[in-house]
Amino acid sequence: MDKKVKPRLARGLQDILPAQMLARQRMIDVIRSVYERYGFVPLDTPAIEFLDVLSGTGGEEAQASIFQVANPDNQEVPLGLRFDLTVPLARVIAQYADLPRPFRRYQVAPVWRADKPGPGRFRQFTQFDLDSVGVKSEVADTEIIAAACDTLEALDVGGFRVRVSSRKVLNLLMPFADIPTEAAADVFRVLDKLDKLGLDKVKLELTTGYKDKSGDTIRGLGLSSAQVQKIEQFLDIKADKREDVLVQIKEAFAGLDDADSAIGELEKISKHLAALGYDDDRVALDLSIARGLAYYTGPVFEAVLLDAPEYGSVFGGGRYDNLVMRFLGEAAPATGASIGVDRLLAALVHLKRIKLVNSTAQVLITRFDNDLIDDYLAMAFELRRAGVRTEMYVGTAKRVGKQLKYADQTDIPIAIMMGSDEKEKGTITIKDLAQGREMSKDMSGHEQWKTERPGQFEAPRSELVQTIKNLLTQIEG
Amino acid sequence: MDKKVKPRLARGLQDILPAQMLARQRMIDVIRSVYERYGFVPLDTPAIEFLDVLSGTGGEEAQASIFQVANPDNQEVPLGLRFDLTVPLARVIAQYADLPRPFRRYQVAPVWRADKPGPGRFRQFTQFDLDSVGVKSEVADTEIIAAACDTLEALDVGGFRVRVSSRKVLNLLMPFADIPTEAAADVFRVLDKLDKLGLDKVKLELTTGYKDKSGDTIRGLGLSSAQVQKIEQFLDIKADKREDVLVQIKEAFAGLDDADSAIGELEKISKHLAALGYDDDRVALDLSIARGLAYYTGPVFEAVLLDAPEYGSVFGGGRYDNLVMRFLGEAAPATGASIGVDRLLAALVHLKRIKLVNSTAQVLITRFDNDLIDDYLAMAFELRRAGVRTEMYVGTAKRVGKQLKYADQTDIPIAIMMGSDEKEKGTITIKDLAQGREMSKDMSGHEQWKTERPGQFEAPRSELVQTIKNLLTQIEG
Repeated sequence: MDKKVKPRLARGLQDILPAQMLARQRMIDVIRSVYERYGFVPLDTPAIEFLDVLSGTGGEEAQASIFQVANPDNQEVPLGLRFDLTVPLARVIAQYADLPRPFRRYQVAPVWRADKPGPGRFRQFTQFDLDSVGVKSEVADTEIIAAACDTLEALDVGGFRVRVSSRKVLNLLMPFADIPTEAAADVFRVLDKLDKLGLDKVKLELTTGYKDKSGDTIRGLGLSSAQVQKIEQFLDIKADKREDVLVQIKEAFAGLDDADSAIGELEKISKHLAALGYDDDRVALDLSIARGLAYYTGPVFEAVLLDAPEYGSVFGGGRYDNLVMRFLGEAAPATGASIGVDRLLAALVHLKRIKLVNSTAQVLITRFDNDLIDDYLAMAFELRRAGVRTEMYVGTAKRVGKQLKYADQTDIPIAIMMGSDEKEKGTITIKDLAQGREMSKDMSGHEQWKTERPGQFEAPRSELVQTIKNLLTQIEG
Repeated sequence: MDKKVKPRLARGLQDILPAQMLARQRMIDVIRSVYERYGFVPLDTPAIEFLDVLSGTGGEEAQASIFQVANPDNQEVPLGLRFDLTVPLARVIAQYADLPRPFRRYQVAPVWRADKPGPGRFRQFTQFDLDSVGVKSEVADTEIIAAACDTLEALDVGGFRVRVSSRKVLNLLMPFADIPTEAAADVFRVLDKLDKLGLDKVKLELTTGYKDKSGDTIRGLGLSSAQVQKIEQFLDIKADKREDVLVQIKEAFAGLDDADSAIGELEKISKHLAALGYDDDRVALDLSIARGLAYYTGPVFEAVLLDAPEYGSVFGGGRYDNLVMRFLGEAAPATGASIGVDRLLAALVHLKRIKLVNSTAQVLITRFDNDLIDDYLAMAFELRRAGVRTEMYVGTAKRVGKQLKYADQTDIPIAIMMGSDEKEKGTITIKDLAQGREMSKDMSGHEQWKTERPGQFEAPRSELVQTIKNLLTQIEG
């Protein structure tokens, strides 16, 4: 045997233990069923891609956050782990000419980023993506936003808001403020700091620049005060109702080239959503949403949980009509969204909207007497065949007390015990472990707990399945 | 925009397109529900592990099939992609002292091997593992084998056989044939070639060696004819009934050290299985099953599909009491099994026991008239909210004929059309696309197809949901 190896994970990586994993699977099942109700289909792509597929032929920088993988066939042609699910989708679209168009797919899978890890920031995390490729119609964008709402509702997240903006409308800011188009990226980079720095510092950075606390000089963009005034006017566009935002946008940008088509797109989406019952409470128009401007070409959106805004955007996406061009050389219009599964799960656990449970088993059959093992096995399989999720204790603990402790540790709600006396009488003893747990729970903020259930009782062995099913109905409500 | 990149995958990697992926997901859901009925819980571990965790501190060779990953924190400490799910499980067991014992987990996830790819041999493939750690009892082994049978039945694979052997019983061959224990690995390596080379060549390789067709010398192990005779006697142990095999084993190995405990273990498992109704047809004792001898320490088994034996073992496992020792320095008894998901799926597709379908959508709402988009959207959401998986056509094709072709390409069974005339009348036109597909199917070997269903009909718009649900009941039977 080898020298002992220390069991450990590399930095930024995590195991997902059963309680978290069960919650995550339930979450993924719910999302999947919503997406399938919309008629999206699943796709899987390998974790490993050619590095140039992932990052394009240019740019060292784009490669910095990619985990590089040695190519077993040729060390000269590097491979990498995918950092998102959108680039592999674009590759698939370009690679398989006979895929149906539109291609409406979902994919739930891990992605990897070699960035500096931090609290809640892992180097492997799971994304759940939803995209329509080969679509120009605003109906496709509408559907993605509606699916986001339906998903968050199906997950019972509580209050949420989807905030919709548009890359095309944001671009109108340049002619509106009389700023050259080339400066757009810089201007948006600075505006992106609004939340962090506040309006005063942002205005300085747009104009003359300033020295920050540590004495470093922050260079200004050299805009004029007239230009900054126009930007402020733009930033003031805000309203609770989508219709009011649209009126303000139209007013502000009246007469500019492209204004009608850019605003018309948002207007259509907003109207479709209204017709389908997605009201202003759930979907707002909010031009402060930018979302990776380099990437998107039309409507963009993100969703926040109203009770957990500190988790940031848990769902976001938009239209990206040019990504497939990297491969095809021609645009394939596309729109989509992504859920950060781990982040959303963390938020829901934090909000106590997902209960973490350590077991799948509903019943533990204890091993009271080694001579009765075949009886215990028979009970286990009788229950399983009746659809009751059942564990027979197979561990090394001999005493039933320890076995019950195991049931407690793993949140199994019911234990069954049978000794030779009971076998002779034709009975079993059933212990309602869920009850003790309910009683010991912190009562603050919960309604007073009451039960009519006995903690432990005997039942005829012949009525095993029915008795357990009845008890489960009471426990699980 | 970057220079165009050729869309392609590295050697040995594959995309799983929707039809395959839908079938795979259905398969995984079924397996998961069987395992959860047994009370197993899910675990997830990251794809990337430290190389020494994966391969131990010794052995270049073990690392040959590992995809190496550059460590962003320290190039000196290499990382790799896991090649199975058992080593990460052993790490988890050693790393988290407070995990419940027994720890009974399932994990379904991709693994990577940098081996030479070939037809059906990919460098990334999905495994579905089931393991009980911290268990000595034969009940645990029994459960794994029973779960294998239940899984294959739930997947409706047709005939299958689980063949059970035992590493401990195989080890009895050495004292039985009076061969030194040190030679065991060599002897088993040669015996493993029986299927490929036949008994005569194997006997030569056990004794004097021989020259093969290409003139290469195959060195013999130098066993005596008495020893080989004993081996032949051992290879003759065969019977349809587990009980008869046990009688033969007992007879052959009577009086050898460890024989009673080795055989007793198999006997207990066989009896438990019989008591639970797993008969000789489904589970056989077969000493020709060896399964990676270096790894296993007790009972081992594998399952083959009787109608597709060419796919080899689709399910296999056994007891491995020493693997966690690499980390802990003490044994943690464990037993488990693994399904090669992709291989099993390929076999089931080959056997036509899984139908490949390209869509999740049951209904396509065509876009007949752009002025009626909000009507189409309303229909789509009405159906979705009633639980009918519905796609509204969002592609760029304007003509309904092309849209129907898309429905055909993606196997959507029903299309809905509505023009302004119909809107005025308050009706919709429903096209039963499934019918045409059923009619055009190859009839050979199938019973004659008949339908009472009209291919296309009008229905009141107000009865949309009920009409579609009725038609789906007829189509899906």
